[in-house]
Amino acid sequence: MKYRFAEMIWYEVKEAAEQDRVAVLPVATYEDHGPHLPVDTDVVLCTEICERAVARIPSEAVLAPPVPHGYSPHHMDFHGTLTITWDTFIRYVKDVCCSLAHHGFKRILVVNGHGSNTPPLDLATRLTVIETEGRVLCGSVNHWGLRKVKEAGRELRESDYGGTSHGGEFETSLYLALRPDLVDMSKAVDERSPLSNSFQSDLLAGGHPEGSSANFTPYWSTKTASGVMGDATKASREKGEKFLEAGIEGLIELVRELRATEIMDRRDQH
Amino acid sequence: MKYRFAEMIWYEVKEAAEQDRVAVLPVATYEDHGPHLPVDTDVVLCTEICERAVARIPSEAVLAPPVPHGYSPHHMDFHGTLTITWDTFIRYVKDVCCSLAHHGFKRILVVNGHGSNTPPLDLATRLTVIETEGRVLCGSVNHWGLRKVKEAGRELRESDYGGTSHGGEFETSLYLALRPDLVDMSKAVDERSPLSNSFQSDLLAGGHPEGSSANFTPYWSTKTASGVMGDATKASREKGEKFLEAGIEGLIELVRELRATEIMDRRDQH
Amino acid sequence: MKYRFAEMIWYEVKEAAEQDRVAVLPVATYEDHGPHLPVDTDVVLCTEICERAVARIPSEAVLAPPVPHGYSPHHMDFHGTLTITWDTFIRYVKDVCCSLAHHGFKRILVVNGHGSNTPPLDLATRLTVIETEGRVLCGSVNHWGLRKVKEAGRELRESDYGGTSHGGEFETSLYLALRPDLVDMSKAVDERSPLSNSFQSDLLAGGHPEGSSANFTPYWSTKTASGVMGDATKASREKGEKFLEAGIEGLIELVRELRATEIMDRRDQH
Amino acid sequence: MKYRFAEMIWYEVKEAAEQDRVAVLPVATYEDHGPHLPVDTDVVLCTEICERAVARIPSEAVLAPPVPHGYSPHHMDFHGTLTITWDTFIRYVKDVCCSLAHHGFKRILVVNGHGSNTPPLDLATRLTVIETEGRVLCGSVNHWGLRKVKEAGRELRESDYGGTSHGGEFETSLYLALRPDLVDMSKAVDERSPLSNSFQSDLLAGGHPEGSSANFTPYWSTKTASGVMGDATKASREKGEKFLEAGIEGLIELVRELRATEIMDRRDQH
Amino acid sequence: MKYRFAEMIWYEVKEAAEQDRVAVLPVATYEDHGPHLPVDTDVVLCTEICERAVARIPSEAVLAPPVPHGYSPHHMDFHGTLTITWDTFIRYVKDVCCSLAHHGFKRILVVNGHGSNTPPLDLATRLTVIETEGRVLCGSVNHWGLRKVKEAGRELRESDYGGTSHGGEFETSLYLALRPDLVDMSKAVDERSPLSNSFQSDLLAGGHPEGSSANFTPYWSTKTASGVMGDATKASREKGEKFLEAGIEGLIELVRELRATEIMDRRDQH
Amino acid sequence: MKYRFAEMIWYEVKEAAEQDRVAVLPVATYEDHGPHLPVDTDVVLCTEICERAVARIPSEAVLAPPVPHGYSPHHMDFHGTLTITWDTFIRYVKDVCCSLAHHGFKRILVVNGHGSNTPPLDLATRLTVIETEGRVLCGSVNHWGLRKVKEAGRELRESDYGGTSHGGEFETSLYLALRPDLVDMSKAVDERSPLSNSFQSDLLAGGHPEGSSANFTPYWSTKTASGVMGDATKASREKGEKFLEAGIEGLIELVRELRATEIMDRRDQH
Repeated sequence: MKYRFAEMIWYEVKEAAEQDRVAVLPVATYEDHGPHLPVDTDVVLCTEICERAVARIPSEAVLAPPVPHGYSPHHMDFHGTLTITWDTFIRYVKDVCCSLAHHGFKRILVVNGHGSNTPPLDLATRLTVIETEGRVLCGSVNHWGLRKVKEAGRELRESDYGGTSHGGEFETSLYLALRPDLVDMSKAVDERSPLSNSFQSDLLAGGHPEGSSANFTPYWSTKTASGVMGDATKASREKGEKFLEAGIEGLIELVRELRATEIMDRRDQH
Repeated sequence: MKYRFAEMIWYEVKEAAEQDRVAVLPVATYEDHGPHLPVDTDVVLCTEICERAVARIPSEAVLAPPVPHGYSPHHMDFHGTLTITWDTFIRYVKDVCCSLAHHGFKRILVVNGHGSNTPPLDLATRLTVIETEGRVLCGSVNHWGLRKVKEAGRELRESDYGGTSHGGEFETSLYLALRPDLVDMSKAVDERSPLSNSFQSDLLAGGHPEGSSANFTPYWSTKTASGVMGDATKASREKGEKFLEAGIEGLIELVRELRATEIMDRRDQH
Repeated sequence: MKYRFAEMIWYEVKEAAEQDRVAVLPVATYEDHGPHLPVDTDVVLCTEICERAVARIPSEAVLAPPVPHGYSPHHMDFHGTLTITWDTFIRYVKDVCCSLAHHGFKRILVVNGHGSNTPPLDLATRLTVIETEGRVLCGSVNHWGLRKVKEAGRELRESDYGGTSHGGEFETSLYLALRPDLVDMSKAVDERSPLSNSFQSDLLAGGHPEGSSANFTPYWSTKTASGVMGDATKASREKGEKFLEAGIEGLIELVRELRATEIMDRRDQH
Repeated sequence: MKYRFAEMIWYEVKEAAEQDRVAVLPVATYEDHGPHLPVDTDVVLCTEICERAVARIPSEAVLAPPVPHGYSPHHMDFHGTLTITWDTFIRYVKDVCCSLAHHGFKRILVVNGHGSNTPPLDLATRLTVIETEGRVLCGSVNHWGLRKVKEAGRELRESDYGGTSHGGEFETSLYLALRPDLVDMSKAVDERSPLSNSFQSDLLAGGHPEGSSANFTPYWSTKTASGVMGDATKASREKGEKFLEAGIEGLIELVRELRATEIMDRRDQH
Repeated sequence: MKYRFAEMIWYEVKEAAEQDRVAVLPVATYEDHGPHLPVDTDVVLCTEICERAVARIPSEAVLAPPVPHGYSPHHMDFHGTLTITWDTFIRYVKDVCCSLAHHGFKRILVVNGHGSNTPPLDLATRLTVIETEGRVLCGSVNHWGLRKVKEAGRELRESDYGGTSHGGEFETSLYLALRPDLVDMSKAVDERSPLSNSFQSDLLAGGHPEGSSANFTPYWSTKTASGVMGDATKASREKGEKFLEAGIEGLIELVRELRATEIMDRRDQH
Repeated sequence: MKYRFAEMIWYEVKEAAEQDRVAVLPVATYEDHGPHLPVDTDVVLCTEICERAVARIPSEAVLAPPVPHGYSPHHMDFHGTLTITWDTFIRYVKDVCCSLAHHGFKRILVVNGHGSNTPPLDLATRLTVIETEGRVLCGSVNHWGLRKVKEAGRELRESDYGGTSHGGEFETSLYLALRPDLVDMSKAVDERSPLSNSFQSDLLAGGHPEGSSANFTPYWSTKTASGVMGDATKASREKGEKFLEAGIEGLIELVRELRATEIMDRRDQH
C-alpha cells in the first residue's frame, strides 16, 4: 500500500483521502547547526521521523511532500541558512494544507523540525481551519514535543538544562543515528546561551523552570560563536536511535489520536 | 515622574528613551468570555497588570499605549469578538514596536493577554529585531507565563487540569479583583474541552502532561457551548487579588531582567 | 443601560446589534503636538467626545473599543509619534468595522481625531461597505467636521486663518477642558505653515479660500520647528468646554441622522 | 519644445528633470456617467485639462503619461466601470510617481478626475514623499478643486446645491465642450441623492453647508437609478468652454505655485 | 458602430458584452528605446495595432482602454523608464480583466507591447481565468508573436539574428510608419548583446537556435551602452508599414480564432 | 567533494560560494499526470536531472535544496495537485535565491520541471537580480528547453506535434527511465488539446508553427479527460534514458556557459 503522496497516481490520492487517512506534512529549514552538523539537520530529522512513522501505518496516514525551507532570518549571519519571509512561509504552508483539504483530507498534521517555525506553522494551520470554515482538523507539532520524545528526553539526556537545544545533545544524537558519515564529532562543542533564565530554552525541557516564559529571539550570532546552543559533546548514536524510535512511536500515537478525534459542528450564534 | 507614554510631551518621550527605560506594550483582544464576563476580559487583565507594574517603577519603564484589538477568528461564532487578520495584526504591532525603536527605545516588552495572540506577537517582536538589525531587544510574554504567576498558580488554583483556561478560574478571579460590578457570577459555569490530551491546554499549567505538545485550534464553538473553557465557579476576588499582585511583581521582575540584559554585537560571518 | 461595547457580555453585544444601535468607533493617533501638549492629544479629544456623546444616548448607540494608533509617517522626525503603515492601518480599522458588521451592526460611524487618518479611514469604511455588499452603512467623520463644531468654530475662534490647525487654538482649548494638568501653556506658541495658499489648511476653516484645494503633505518638520501648526496661545479652557459641548452635540446629531437613514437596495444592472 | 513625457527620447527626459519642470500626472477612471455621457468622462475631462495647460507652459511642466484606470468599486453595478483594488491602485500611482522622482523630477502634481480617487491619490502622493525621504514635493488636486474652477463654479452654475456632482451640470458641460458628438443630451436627467445633509456632496460646492462633513459612500446604485447625481439638463457647451478655460488657467496657476515652493530640509530630532 | 469601450455609454458596454465581442486590451510600458526613439515606443506600437485592428471588425471586438505603464525595473538606469512593481502590475491588469468579465465579456485578449511584461501578463490573465472559475477565456499575446508578424519577419528583416530586439530593426520600422517625425534616424545604432547564445533573444526569431531557452534578465545597462539591442540602422518606414499591416491582420486573425473557441465545462473530479 | 548544499556544514557553504560554483536550484510541482504517472512526475524529472548533472561537476556547481511545490491552480480539478498562490510562490523562490546570494553565490540557475512555473520563476529570478542590484546573475530554464534536450527531441520523438506535452511521450519516457515501477503503462493514453493552433503547445516543439504565440491557460479539465496532454503510448524507457542523458549534458553545458559569463557593471545614467 502506497504511503507517499508523491508516488501516488492522482486517483490514488482521491482514494487515500476517502479512507480518511491523516496527511502528515513535514516542515523544516536549512540553517547552520554548528561546526559538526550539516545545514539540513532539521530537514533530515523531521522528514525521517515522518517517513518511518507513516511507513508503519500506511492505512492510517499519508506522507505529504515535505516543505523543506522555513523561517530563520536570525540565523542569516551564518552561511547555509535559507530563510523565507514570515508571511510568505505561512502562506506557502497554508496553501499546501488547503490543497490537501481541497482534495478531501480532513485531518492534517504538520510535523515541524525547526524551533522558529513554531509560530508560523501554528498560524498556517489555523488559517487552514478558518479557510475551510472548520471542516478540517489541521494543526502542528514539533517532533521534540511528541509525548514519547519528551519522555525519552527525561530518561536519556545527560546534559543539564540548555544542553538539548540547537545542534546539541538531542539533535546531534538523532543525526548520528541517521547519517553518521556526515557528522564531524571532532568539532562538537558545548556552548550555552549567555542570557538569563527568562530568555533560556531547551528543546526537550522547554522554558527554564526558574524563569518567565518569555519569547525573545535576538540574532543567533549574538548568543553563540559556534552556532551551537547546547552540548553536542554528549551526543551518541545509541541515544539517537532511541530518540528516533521515540519520535516514530510518538508520531504514530499522535496520528491515531488525531484520527480518533471527532470533527464537531460549529454552534454559530448568529 | 510620568510613566505613561501617552501623557508625555514629545521631548519627554525622547528623555524616557535616553534613560533606557523598558517600553512595556500591552496587547490583548475583545472576545466572548462566557456568560459571566465582559468581552474586554483580556484587555482589562493585561492592561491593568501593566499599568500597575509600570507605575511602581517609573524610572525603569514606560507604559506604551495598548493595542487592544487582537487575533481571534475562531471565536467569531460568538458576538462581541473583534478580530484582526493575522498579518495585519502582526504588522500593526510590529509598527508600534518599530516606532518605539525609532525613537530610541532599545528594550521593548510586549505583554499579551490573549492566548491566540501568542504566535502573532512572537512574530511581530522578531520582525522588530530583524528590522532594527539586532540593535533592539524586543520580545513578548503572556501575563500568565510570568514566573510569579506560574508560581501563584501552583499555590492558589483549586480546579484541576483544564480549569484555568479561557474564562475559567484564573481569568474570572482576576476580573473579580479589578471590576467586580461587571461580573455575573450567577452565570459562571465549569465547561471543559471535549478533546483528548494532546489537544488540551491550561493557561497556568500548559499542555497536558500526558499528551504531545500539539497546536490545534478548531473553531471555539465546536469545543464549548458556553464559551468558557475552564472552571469559572472556582473563581474568587481574593484569589484574583493574589493573582494580580503576582502579575505585577512578576512583570516588574521580568522588566528588570530585560533591563539588565546586554545587547550584544552580531558576529556576522560574511 | 450599558453603552460601552467593551463592558458587555457577549449576548449583550448581540442585543445591542439587534436594537440597531449605531456603533461609534473612535480612531486617532499618537504624535507630537508641540512643546505644550502630550502625544495623546488626538486620542483624548476624539475618545472623550465619543464617550460623552454615546453615554447620553445609550439606547441609540454603542461605543466601540477605540483604535488609538493611526497613520503619521510624516511626523516621525519628532519623538512620540507611533505610526502604522498605511495599508496595515486601513486593514486594521476595516477588520474592526467588519467584525462589528459580522455581529449585526448595520450602521457604523468612525470618528476620527487625526487629520492624516482621513484618507485611510475613508478607504477603511468604503471597504466595509464593499465587503458587506452594501448591507451596512459605514463611514467616517472628523470631530472638527461635525456641523456644530464648525458652527462653534465660526463663533469662538480668535486666531485668524491657519490658527486652528495641529496643536493650535482649537485642539489646545479642548485638551485644557479635558486634562488641564497635562498642558504646559507656558510653552504654547503661535507657528504657521510657510507654504502658500494652495498648500494651507485649517482644521475648522478647511482649505484656504484663496487657494486651490490641493493635498500636499511634506514632512512635518520641514514646516514647523515647534511641531505646532496654529496659534496655541489663543487657547483657553472656556473655549475648550464650548468646543467639547459642540462636539458632543454634533456627534449625537450625526448619529441620529445616520440612524434615520434607510439602507436601500442595490439596483444591479447585471 | 516637447512637453509630453511620452514623446521624449530618454535623454530628453533627463533634461526636462534637470530643468526642474513640474511633472503633471493625470489620473482618472472609467465608469458609468448616466445615460448621456460615455464611460470615459473622467478620463477625457482630466487629461484634456492637463494636456492643454501643460502645452501652454512647456518650459515649466511636463505631461506625464496618464493613469486612466482608477478606484470605483461602488459603481460596479453599472456596466462600463473598470475598478482597481484600492491598494493596487495606490501602489500603481505611487510607482509612477516614484519612477518620476527616480529620474530627477522634484515636483510632481497628480491631477485627479474622479471623486473616489481622492483618498487613494492622497495616499499615493504621501507615500512618494516618504519613500523619497522628503526630497520630493508630491501631491494631488481634483480639477474641480482648482481655485479658478471653484470661482467659475460660483459664477456659472445654474443648478442649486447637488446639481454639479457625478454626470451633472459641470461634467456634462465640460464634455460638451470637448467631444459634443459623444453626448446624448436627449437623455440628460436631473437626479439627486436621497440622503440627508451630512451625506451630500457637490463637486463645486463641497459638503452641504447645513451638514456635518461626513464621508459615506454606499453603492452608487442605491442612490441613483440613472447613474447621474446632479442636474445634467442644465449643461451647455458654452459653460463647458468657460469651465475648461478655468481649469487650464487654474492648473497653470497651481503648477507655478508648486514650482515656486521651496523644498525645505527636515529638522529630524533624532 | 462604436468600437472603443471608452466612448461607449454604460448601456452600450452592456450591449457589446452581450454581442460576445472580444475585449482587446493593449498593455505596454514607457522606457528608453535608444537615442533615436521616444520612450513611448512600446505603447504606440501596441495600441496602434490594436486600435486599427479592432476598428476594422467592430462587430467582433471592443478596444478596452489601454494599460500603458508596465514592468521594467531593469531599465531604470535610463531616464524615462516608468516601472510598476511586479505584483502591483499583475493585480492591476487582472483587475481590468476581471472588471471586463464582471460586465459580461467572456473572451479577453491582452495584447502586449513590451517583452518583460510577458510573464506578468501571463499571470494576470491566468488569474482572471481562476477568479472567474473558468467561465472566461482570457490570455495574452505579444504583437510580435502574432502568426502574420512572425511570417512577415521571415520575409522582411534584413538584420541577422539579434537585430530585431529592443529598439532595433522591427520596432524602429514600426515607429517610422506611425510617427516618423518623432524618430531621429541620425542617431540610430546597431548594438548587440554581449552575452552568449543561451542568454540571447530576438523579438521575431525567439531564442538563439544554438542555445538553451534560458530566461536571464540582467540590468539593461550592463548589456548595452546605447539602450538599443538590435540593428536600428536597418529600419525603414516601408518595412514598418508592412509590419504594421501584418500586425493588424494577425491580430484580427487571432481575435477570430478566439471568438470561435468554445468555452468548455470543467470536469471537476471532486 | 560535496556537491549537495544540504549536506554541507555551514562553513563548507561559505567555501562553495567563494569557489564561485553555480547554485543549481530545482523547482517543480505536484499535480496529476494522467492515469499512468505519479503526481511527482515534474519533481522527479527535474530533481534527478539536476542531481546527476551537478554530481558530475562538483567543483563547478552546487545542488541547492529543491523547491518541490509550485504553481498549478488550473489543475485543481484533479486530486493530487498541490498549488501555491502565484505571489507566494514567486516570493518563496525569490527568498531562496536571495538567501543563496546573501551567502555569496553570484550565479544562480533555477531549473524548472513544470510548464506553468515558467512565468513565476522568470519573475522570481528577475527579482533576485533587482534585489541584489545587479551583482548576481540569476535566471531560469525549463529542463526541456536545454539545447541538448531540444536536439534530442528532434531526433527521438515519434509522436507528431502535441504529443510531447503534459504526461506525454517525453515525460513518460523520462519517468520510465528513472522509476519504472511507479508507471502503469497499461493506462497510458494519447489525448490532445481540442483547441486551435494559436492555443496549442508542445514541450519540445514549442508553440504551433501555424499559430500565433498566445498564452491561454484554461482549466486543465476543460481540455482533457484523462489529464494527459500528449501521446503517452509512444513512451519507452530507452528513449527516456536518452532524454535523461541529454538533460544532464544539456544542464552541464548551460552551467558552464553561465559560469563563463562576466558579471558586468551597470552604466547608471543618474
